[in-house]
Amino acid sequence: VLDLYFSPLACSLAARIALGEAGLEARYHRVDLGSKTLTEDGGDYRAIAPKGKIPALRLEDGSVLTENVAVLQCLADRWAEARPAPAADAASAYRQTEWLGFVSTELHKGFLYPTFAPESPEETRRHVRANVGAALAHVDASLADRPWLLGDAFSVADAYLVWALVLTRHLGIDFAPWPALASYLERALARPSVAAALAIERALNPEKKR
Amino acid sequence: VLDLYFSPLACSLAARIALGEAGLEARYHRVDLGSKTLTEDGGDYRAIAPKGKIPALRLEDGSVLTENVAVLQCLADRWAEARPAPAADAASAYRQTEWLGFVSTELHKGFLYPTFAPESPEETRRHVRANVGAALAHVDASLADRPWLLGDAFSVADAYLVWALVLTRHLGIDFAPWPALASYLERALARPSVAAALAIERALNPEKKR
Repeated sequence: VLDLYFSPLACSLAARIALGEAGLEARYHRVDLGSKTLTEDGGDYRAIAPKGKIPALRLEDGSVLTENVAVLQCLADRWAEARPAPAADAASAYRQTEWLGFVSTELHKGFLYPTFAPESPEETRRHVRANVGAALAHVDASLADRPWLLGDAFSVADAYLVWALVLTRHLGIDFAPWPALASYLERALARPSVAAALAIERALNPEKKR
Repeated sequence: VLDLYFSPLACSLAARIALGEAGLEARYHRVDLGSKTLTEDGGDYRAIAPKGKIPALRLEDGSVLTENVAVLQCLADRWAEARPAPAADAASAYRQTEWLGFVSTELHKGFLYPTFAPESPEETRRHVRANVGAALAHVDASLADRPWLLGDAFSVADAYLVWALVLTRHLGIDFAPWPALASYLERALARPSVAAALAIERALNPEKKR
């Protein structure tokens, strides 16, 4: 069985959504990112994931995978095995990786990370917020003709994007200029996997991010 | 034949190194990132890559792939076809994706991008420079027992890391605290593919980054 190391409403939420969509079983281990310890027993998280970041996914063979693009790629492969879908060709696999790369750099590392990191300079927060519109506009334009990033099927790239959009909206950024993006988010929030993942992690973290 | 859209010494250098390692033919098209035009004919680069960023890789079927993690993943697959190597199993593929994710977020988007972007606040530059040591230390620790990121064979993850380290060193960051990283970079610079890629792009851009 898989083990997912997570922090409530952090980017590991994308892996939880993907696991739910795929119907894959996993054990979930909460990490205190401040002290780098496991909530369940106070164990040293760096002994599992030396970088001390989430998500980390432990596979059945004991190996541990980190970085969202790799964790989500691995879950996409497991998902495809569990629920084979038509048209999972190489072109759509590269398109999926392209979106994982976009979300991880333009939205996550370029905007959300510096916004939420306690040590970020205020100038940095202002600058990234003033510039995130270009990335949101690209997402909006890409969704003009399709329900999900890769077409008709929800994928791990959507799981990652949905997490990023929930946090972006929570920061008070108004999606009105990007109607395709706004309706995409509503559509995503109505999916059982997304609703369940958010409900579980909000209950664990009632005071912070929505 | 593949078409690579690049800017001299920008992150597209990693794709050039990968193409060289794989012995793959490609046409190279220089992009002026300020005006978003092609140097060869003044054409609109956004007509090829709407986000206006490099690298972009046009495949034989005319489709265009962007984002380093996707472009390098695609080149890794072509490379494996062109020069099959033993032990290209799923575990090492995920490890490769993990390193692509790490370089793209921790070194590229988290450090190099804000450092080189002309519009970055000075406070941001200072902050990311003060914090890049943790990422470099992780690379150094990972290289203690192997010549390349994935073991005995140079991969696209190395191509990306080498580019990042060349620019990081050019910024005056001393690698003395990380001896495994420093000797890795020397080893990489001695590879014909790396030396050739750097020589070509330095000749195109003699005044800027080393």
